[in-house]
Amino acid sequence: MSIDRANAKAVERMIDARPRLTGIERAGDALPGLEEGTLLHAGPPIDWPRMSGPLRGAVIGALLFEGWAATPEEAEERAAGGEIRFDPCHHHGAVGPMAGVTSPSMAVYRVENETHGNVAFSNLNEGYGKVLRYGAFDDEVLERLRWINGPMAEVLGAALDAGEPLDLRALLSEALHMGDEGHNRNKAGSILFLQRLAPRIARTCADRETAARVLAFLGDNALSVLNPVMAAAKAMADAAHGVDGSTLVTAMARNGTDFGIRVSGLGDRWFTAPAPTPDGLYFSGFSATDANPDIGDSTITETAGFGAFAMAAAPAIVTFVSGTPKDAMAATLEMYEITEAEHRHLTIPALEFRGTPVGIDLRKVVELGITPRVNTGIAHREAGIGQIGAGLVRPPMAVFRDALLAWAEAHDL
Amino acid sequence: MSIDRANAKAVERMIDARPRLTGIERAGDALPGLEEGTLLHAGPPIDWPRMSGPLRGAVIGALLFEGWAATPEEAEERAAGGEIRFDPCHHHGAVGPMAGVTSPSMAVYRVENETHGNVAFSNLNEGYGKVLRYGAFDDEVLERLRWINGPMAEVLGAALDAGEPLDLRALLSEALHMGDEGHNRNKAGSILFLQRLAPRIARTCADRETAARVLAFLGDNALSVLNPVMAAAKAMADAAHGVDGSTLVTAMARNGTDFGIRVSGLGDRWFTAPAPTPDGLYFSGFSATDANPDIGDSTITETAGFGAFAMAAAPAIVTFVSGTPKDAMAATLEMYEITEAEHRHLTIPALEFRGTPVGIDLRKVVELGITPRVNTGIAHREAGIGQIGAGLVRPPMAVFRDALLAWAEAHDL
Repeated sequence: MSIDRANAKAVERMIDARPRLTGIERAGDALPGLEEGTLLHAGPPIDWPRMSGPLRGAVIGALLFEGWAATPEEAEERAAGGEIRFDPCHHHGAVGPMAGVTSPSMAVYRVENETHGNVAFSNLNEGYGKVLRYGAFDDEVLERLRWINGPMAEVLGAALDAGEPLDLRALLSEALHMGDEGHNRNKAGSILFLQRLAPRIARTCADRETAARVLAFLGDNALSVLNPVMAAAKAMADAAHGVDGSTLVTAMARNGTDFGIRVSGLGDRWFTAPAPTPDGLYFSGFSATDANPDIGDSTITETAGFGAFAMAAAPAIVTFVSGTPKDAMAATLEMYEITEAEHRHLTIPALEFRGTPVGIDLRKVVELGITPRVNTGIAHREAGIGQIGAGLVRPPMAVFRDALLAWAEAHDL
Repeated sequence: MSIDRANAKAVERMIDARPRLTGIERAGDALPGLEEGTLLHAGPPIDWPRMSGPLRGAVIGALLFEGWAATPEEAEERAAGGEIRFDPCHHHGAVGPMAGVTSPSMAVYRVENETHGNVAFSNLNEGYGKVLRYGAFDDEVLERLRWINGPMAEVLGAALDAGEPLDLRALLSEALHMGDEGHNRNKAGSILFLQRLAPRIARTCADRETAARVLAFLGDNALSVLNPVMAAAKAMADAAHGVDGSTLVTAMARNGTDFGIRVSGLGDRWFTAPAPTPDGLYFSGFSATDANPDIGDSTITETAGFGAFAMAAAPAIVTFVSGTPKDAMAATLEMYEITEAEHRHLTIPALEFRGTPVGIDLRKVVELGITPRVNTGIAHREAGIGQIGAGLVRPPMAVFRDALLAWAEAHDL
């Protein structure tokens, strides 16, 4: 099969994937190999010694959450002592924003790609600020985590079981017509998620106060839908993975130290390079010197053709990630240069309903010298603090060059 | 006071108005003079013989709803026989979309302008299609009306009483950053409305099934928030009314036969001319020959500086009202020509967060020959059918010319 035909096939699979949210499961039950003593994390593989502050913070929090350690000090000791096995979310069909740390007792959304049958998972979103995924782990963080993964997960699970699976591609498509780009701006998507679930929650949750609290948490958190949307993007990207000869990127992910990509025609190999630090806007009291290098699996959104690639749909996002609405427009236009196709299901009204740029071709990235755009949150570089801003970043060119070389070698070129 | 100073004062009052939704009341209790035998309607004054089909249909439906007639034939007889007093919503501090027919037993939203203290009201939205406000009155329509004005109004009233009044200007401002223009596209606003109310509804409504049904109705109807937003616009526009010497338009309204405006410095007088028929997109099975002339008080949104005036914020609206996203952009840009100011609280991300054009100056309308843009629904010309499409319309120039002449006379010019 020619490269062009391989890429056309891969991108068609990415576009045709129809991810639907079918329910909530316990991570330890849903994700093979996520056993006691194992923690999943965002990005390519990494061990404790090379982990950045926010990832370490999230690991400490997860050990406390699971009861595998009683104090942060004990948690750090166990993690550093080699007692914990670390594995990327991506190796278990999952994705997690920022640190992405997922432990067996946590709840995960289950997303099924109706078209091709593959499945993907993501943990539940905790909101903004001082949260585990940004490396915070104090009592407030742990208490919220327990509520989210306990009572809230139960309510959401019952609500999802009470009706048809939620069509996440349709939801995302609507959200892109409502000023979202689906990665850093999920304001519309999150209340569309609420709109779908609210009647089911009212119907299935016997305790009115709990129902009210879940509805308030979902509705007030403008990132509620980010995690199911990330699992949807993972299901889309995975559908395009493994096409022999294809140079399309099927994963981009960061662990806070390395930025890694995977390529459709190059199996499960990661191509990595040091993760850059984002440029952006900082919350009051923080500045660029506090920022950790880029972190998280959420770049799966750009991989699947939205996020920064759909920024033209989300001019208001610049108040959060910096820049002007014209920059947002330019970001999308530039991404058409390095992608294989225009999405049929995700469109941008302001570009006369043009489809979003989808399917990053690493040949084009290297030839044109244009790396993909990424919108991202910014974590404090130290463990225990949390989110300090949001901004823009680009992957290092090296990962695309290395991947292209590997592709050439694999094809005897 | 000079005209310029009068207009500056009037528009400042319009911009500074902060309408908040405080609760739900029975129309007959809330609106002075709305007694047994009286019906309110949209637009300037009109009596039965000159009423168009959809307004007649809504009148028939309201008489059946109130039990003032037992059959459509009896209702028509009573209405034609002079037994019913008809009065504009606007004469009672209220506004209603399309036919706008409001009867004493209906529920109304109460909106208070926190800044200036004035109050405005609007009835509850019934959704799309075959509904009273488009002139339909069959059993399905009446049954829905009874549920909306009975159980649903009760649930909404209790939810509104259970917390702080809802800041509608803040809601609208958010919605304009989410692809709404606040008149024909209220998709984001309606789920923001749901987001605000859902936890309160879950908390205060003891019957889970009723709570679920109300949440589904609010969330599935992309016009849920139109009526409170119209009352908010009425509260804004009323705040600008009665400024001596001002040539700003403070009401535009249509009864299906006449298009009427009121002017800040010209008291309660209406300037009317025949209502034009909108251009637009039709639901399957209908065409322009079925369309009634323009109808409804919803032009209060354009009067207050949004709706068609904010179309640049809502490129996706063209799938509903016709045109292209570029036309939508052009519509807003044109409206800056005939308005007094740019809104400080309502902004358009795609125009680099420029404020919406607000405060129609009839001098500019007449001088430049540019009439205001209006987005609108389209009703079938016959009673009993309902909505057949949505589109664009402009008021007749004559109403602005007449008003300017009257202004000149009043000022001895």
